[in-house]
Amino acid sequence: MANYSVNKTAHLFDKTRFEALLNRRFFYAPAFEIYGGVAGLYDYGPPGSSLQANIIAEWRRHFIIEDHMLELDTTIMTSAPVFEASGHVARFADWMVKDTKTGDVLRADHLVKNVLEARLAGDREARGSAAAQAVVVVDDKKKKKKKGNVKAVAVQLPDEVVKEYEKVLAQIDNYSGPELGELCRQYKITNPDTDNEVTEPQEFNLMFNSSIGPTGQHKGYLRPETAQGHFLNFSRLVEFNNGRIPFASAQIGRAFRNEISPRAGLLRVREFTMAEIEHFVDPADKRHTKFGEVRDVEISLLDRYVQERGSSSSVRMRVGDAIDRGVIANETLGYFVARIYQFLIKIGINPDRLRFRQHMANEMAHYATDCWDAEIQNSYGWTECVGCADRAAYDLSVHSAKTGTPLVVRQALKEPIVTEKEVAEWNKKLLGKTFKADAGAIQKVVEAMNESELLRLKDELSQGSTVVKTEDGKEFQLTSELVTIERKTFKQSIREFTPNVIEPSFGLGRILYALLEHSYWSRENDIERGVLSLPPVVAPTKVLIVPLSAREEFDPLVQEVSTKLRRAGVFSRVDDSNTSIGKRYSRNDELGTPFGVTLDFASVQNRTMTLRERDTMDQRIGGIDEVIAVVTELVFGTLDWKGACRRLPAYDGVQAVD
Amino acid sequence: MANYSVNKTAHLFDKTRFEALLNRRFFYAPAFEIYGGVAGLYDYGPPGSSLQANIIAEWRRHFIIEDHMLELDTTIMTSAPVFEASGHVARFADWMVKDTKTGDVLRADHLVKNVLEARLAGDREARGSAAAQAVVVVDDKKKKKKKGNVKAVAVQLPDEVVKEYEKVLAQIDNYSGPELGELCRQYKITNPDTDNEVTEPQEFNLMFNSSIGPTGQHKGYLRPETAQGHFLNFSRLVEFNNGRIPFASAQIGRAFRNEISPRAGLLRVREFTMAEIEHFVDPADKRHTKFGEVRDVEISLLDRYVQERGSSSSVRMRVGDAIDRGVIANETLGYFVARIYQFLIKIGINPDRLRFRQHMANEMAHYATDCWDAEIQNSYGWTECVGCADRAAYDLSVHSAKTGTPLVVRQALKEPIVTEKEVAEWNKKLLGKTFKADAGAIQKVVEAMNESELLRLKDELSQGSTVVKTEDGKEFQLTSELVTIERKTFKQSIREFTPNVIEPSFGLGRILYALLEHSYWSRENDIERGVLSLPPVVAPTKVLIVPLSAREEFDPLVQEVSTKLRRAGVFSRVDDSNTSIGKRYSRNDELGTPFGVTLDFASVQNRTMTLRERDTMDQRIGGIDEVIAVVTELVFGTLDWKGACRRLPAYDGVQAVD
Repeated sequence: MANYSVNKTAHLFDKTRFEALLNRRFFYAPAFEIYGGVAGLYDYGPPGSSLQANIIAEWRRHFIIEDHMLELDTTIMTSAPVFEASGHVARFADWMVKDTKTGDVLRADHLVKNVLEARLAGDREARGSAAAQAVVVVDDKKKKKKKGNVKAVAVQLPDEVVKEYEKVLAQIDNYSGPELGELCRQYKITNPDTDNEVTEPQEFNLMFNSSIGPTGQHKGYLRPETAQGHFLNFSRLVEFNNGRIPFASAQIGRAFRNEISPRAGLLRVREFTMAEIEHFVDPADKRHTKFGEVRDVEISLLDRYVQERGSSSSVRMRVGDAIDRGVIANETLGYFVARIYQFLIKIGINPDRLRFRQHMANEMAHYATDCWDAEIQNSYGWTECVGCADRAAYDLSVHSAKTGTPLVVRQALKEPIVTEKEVAEWNKKLLGKTFKADAGAIQKVVEAMNESELLRLKDELSQGSTVVKTEDGKEFQLTSELVTIERKTFKQSIREFTPNVIEPSFGLGRILYALLEHSYWSRENDIERGVLSLPPVVAPTKVLIVPLSAREEFDPLVQEVSTKLRRAGVFSRVDDSNTSIGKRYSRNDELGTPFGVTLDFASVQNRTMTLRERDTMDQRIGGIDEVIAVVTELVFGTLDWKGACRRLPAYDGVQAVD
Repeated sequence: MANYSVNKTAHLFDKTRFEALLNRRFFYAPAFEIYGGVAGLYDYGPPGSSLQANIIAEWRRHFIIEDHMLELDTTIMTSAPVFEASGHVARFADWMVKDTKTGDVLRADHLVKNVLEARLAGDREARGSAAAQAVVVVDDKKKKKKKGNVKAVAVQLPDEVVKEYEKVLAQIDNYSGPELGELCRQYKITNPDTDNEVTEPQEFNLMFNSSIGPTGQHKGYLRPETAQGHFLNFSRLVEFNNGRIPFASAQIGRAFRNEISPRAGLLRVREFTMAEIEHFVDPADKRHTKFGEVRDVEISLLDRYVQERGSSSSVRMRVGDAIDRGVIANETLGYFVARIYQFLIKIGINPDRLRFRQHMANEMAHYATDCWDAEIQNSYGWTECVGCADRAAYDLSVHSAKTGTPLVVRQALKEPIVTEKEVAEWNKKLLGKTFKADAGAIQKVVEAMNESELLRLKDELSQGSTVVKTEDGKEFQLTSELVTIERKTFKQSIREFTPNVIEPSFGLGRILYALLEHSYWSRENDIERGVLSLPPVVAPTKVLIVPLSAREEFDPLVQEVSTKLRRAGVFSRVDDSNTSIGKRYSRNDELGTPFGVTLDFASVQNRTMTLRERDTMDQRIGGIDEVIAVVTELVFGTLDWKGACRRLPAYDGVQAVD
């Protein structure tokens, strides 16, 4: 495998230049920008779309194809009763506060976090600590203060206050609305844009709503996750899978969340593409047949106990050990944590900047019983990019209860379960004759008895008679002529149960953004010129074909190379624009194109071609077909650049290419 | 290429059995079905999702990759001003009528169409004409009358009424709302469900709306097409394309239309996946460099003149001839019509049931200047599945006007355009001195003059003096000391223009549905057993691997075949369920799986494997690797079944497989 060393200059990560690159090369841009845009809505341009499409294609291979998942494509527009049952109408909300004077709306937890972090930064500055510079972001001092950004002011805090703030921040996701309000009062937190006080936190539901039909007869919500579409189709899915369990369904699609105050670019948006897996599993057996394949994968874990102690130090651990020690609850959850890790590394995320953080008790979504987030470090901090939750039987149970549709698995038991228990056998005729209208109440009392009560009754009956008391307090004497208690054998051959659900849920936009940050650097001698070291598997274009000029004599060769690469399954683009070869390569370094081939007069004469590697700018030369063979292997990862160098000699020709 | 003869039993198309198959195999199903569903919203199950994903993958290859289009992914949620400018808020509407008593809502044009078609069917029945049976649908007589279906009653109509109805139906898409209201009165059309009268047609806007942000500060619409996302990003796209034109952008994504009364399954839905291309072209040159490649493609065309005459007979024509004769307006439009045709045939649409129909003048969307629909015949009639419109400069112009952002192309002219014209040269000092406050008004009048007026002025000045009249009616005498008229040369080296847009727009759900109908048939001796003859390129699974049983001894071979197929890029599934091989193949005939390989005891002993072809049920046998090689070629279309039979001998073994 080629070694794509990302973040070669991470200590100098220059966010201003990075963002300028993404904008200049149209990776993405604010939606309806010419109309002024609306926060939290972004359009992906050609390289962003291709990068996303390649991430999705790899996701499909890595998860759906590898584990034979059942793919779904369900609607975004969803009838309101679905989200009433799922609990989203009542509980899918964030806490917001309003500026008491301007009415501006802020998300309560973000407000507390931003203000406390700024105070801590100011404290470090005042103490002259180098810690203030330890962050990876080089702030552009000339940049204007953006709305919602809190500026650090150099004020030293008492040591115990620093400790308090740090403890609050370590569990910022764990506070309820009233607690956040309390924090605002306690620490005198105001709206940083205006210095006005803020209101008590109120809940704001994050679902967009609309109405369906010409008379608005159906209330609808835009789904905030794709998951419900899987659950509602559970019966069809299990039937499609021939009634077998475990199995997983998977879906890639849009979801919508009406965020209170979206910021941080692609990290917090109102419309986004998700990829979700719902793995349905027997609650009594959460082992995974392929767990052995991932047992030795080593990952960074940050469990809830560490966080509750106010710490954020993660621990590197093999997934197998995490299961054995009970850090991760079960094998299936562990399997997916490892598979998520492998996927993220494969597409180019820096493993040193990836950790799995366990949700704290209050932080968990209303449906989850355990949850691990894959968090990726970037210039905004550690960002949740994948959630991996054990939703238990929550969703299937609530939908089943609301609709009366059984959402269960019926398993023929290999060996029927045989149980014995004491059962009352009535002489109903005599009972009716004797007790008339009270007969029913008497039966009810006896049938509600547990095993030991029944045994006592049996004993008393064998000694002659017994007295039972009905619900309304009346007493009746029973004899063995009226009722006998007998031991009977029961055989159960079908087991029926509601499966549990393990849900890995991917925010593709966040992953894409973090990947871009991890891939970005610039050459020491040319800081203006950015490079995106995207691995070939996700790079928008794999090979750039660069004819020396747009002159017609190069056309047949360009056509030949282009066609041969397409047949080999390698996506290439031709750049015959009217600018120097160096500038064309430069543009493609910024687009993350890993390889380039140049066609010049020597190519026409000798059928040779040079091959350039993006990160090293090394150039090799060889026959056209040999270069195509080598670059194909490079793209598919069966050859690394060192291997390529053994097959192709260095290029030291007269044609300056860079 | 393999010859996948679809519609082998089209004359017997059994819609009830067909729909039962799609439901049983979970191609798609009503969304939130367990909650009763909402009309016009459907979920795709595993085979439907795969089929759709394969159609999209082929679309990407056929259009985006082949023609180097720039892919985009823009938001669904769109700020209201965008659709105000585009005209959708005012005009993206259908005409609806209400039942005067129940308030039920009906789409006006559908009501007229359904009622008149039913009356014509009743007339044919009364006349005992065989024409009533000429439709491809075998109606299930036992089926209950669905709401909105109009039952034909055998009543003969006067000949002239029949003619009138037929004429109305041929141009049903051409009527305005008031005209539809007039037709209802004239032909006494009532709500067929209740026989009540209906109201005058009213407009109903088809966009779903919502509001963005916690205080509902931004009104938003769910896009009804992806197109606006392309137009709004035009400046970025043309820059990405190094300022060159023509080029095309492409986008695959969801769109929403709040249909008045969705019916006809996937053909008229409220949420759907589209694939749209916006090809930006010089309005002065709509030629296409690759037109030569499609010139000889022969297609069925139904132009607007034929329809206006009340006919619906299409004409087969080569695309080149259609351009030469002016039937299709320009080469670029023609190129896309041909490319759309080729795409649809490639994925399995029956060419005999595909036509291109030109929109009539009143039918065209508000933004289009010409439009051809690819219509596919199915049991609901001829359905628009792809629109191919020339939107001219409409969209770019309105967005540019509304936002003040230039959405233009600037081209350096190879040869500057040199023009000469008469220009007034003023002695401004003297002019001011002479006329004071009137000087400006005098200049304005002269500078507004055209060439011939200036020449007359020049002539008069050369003879001494002239009189000009300002806007407020005052007259002033000018002499050549104050002004002279001189001939000057102007050189224009940049040409600036708003491009035109040719837009092929695909409704993927409609194409998918029509394809399923065209692919469906059943074997003569086993009518209950459906077959979907989907071409390998779109079939959800390409190869089914069938071990004789789930016994462990087959596991290594299953694993080997599965891995080898995956490496060859062939998507396979294993079916080791506990049922006969015949039943397993049967299930996969219904899923459209073109090939199956069986692993039995002979495979374990001799490393042989049988290969079964879905449509013929032919079985061949060969060494495992040879069968894998053959089936790979079959899947990629480099070998047909006849060729495969030459390489693999017929299987006549003892193991009965069907």
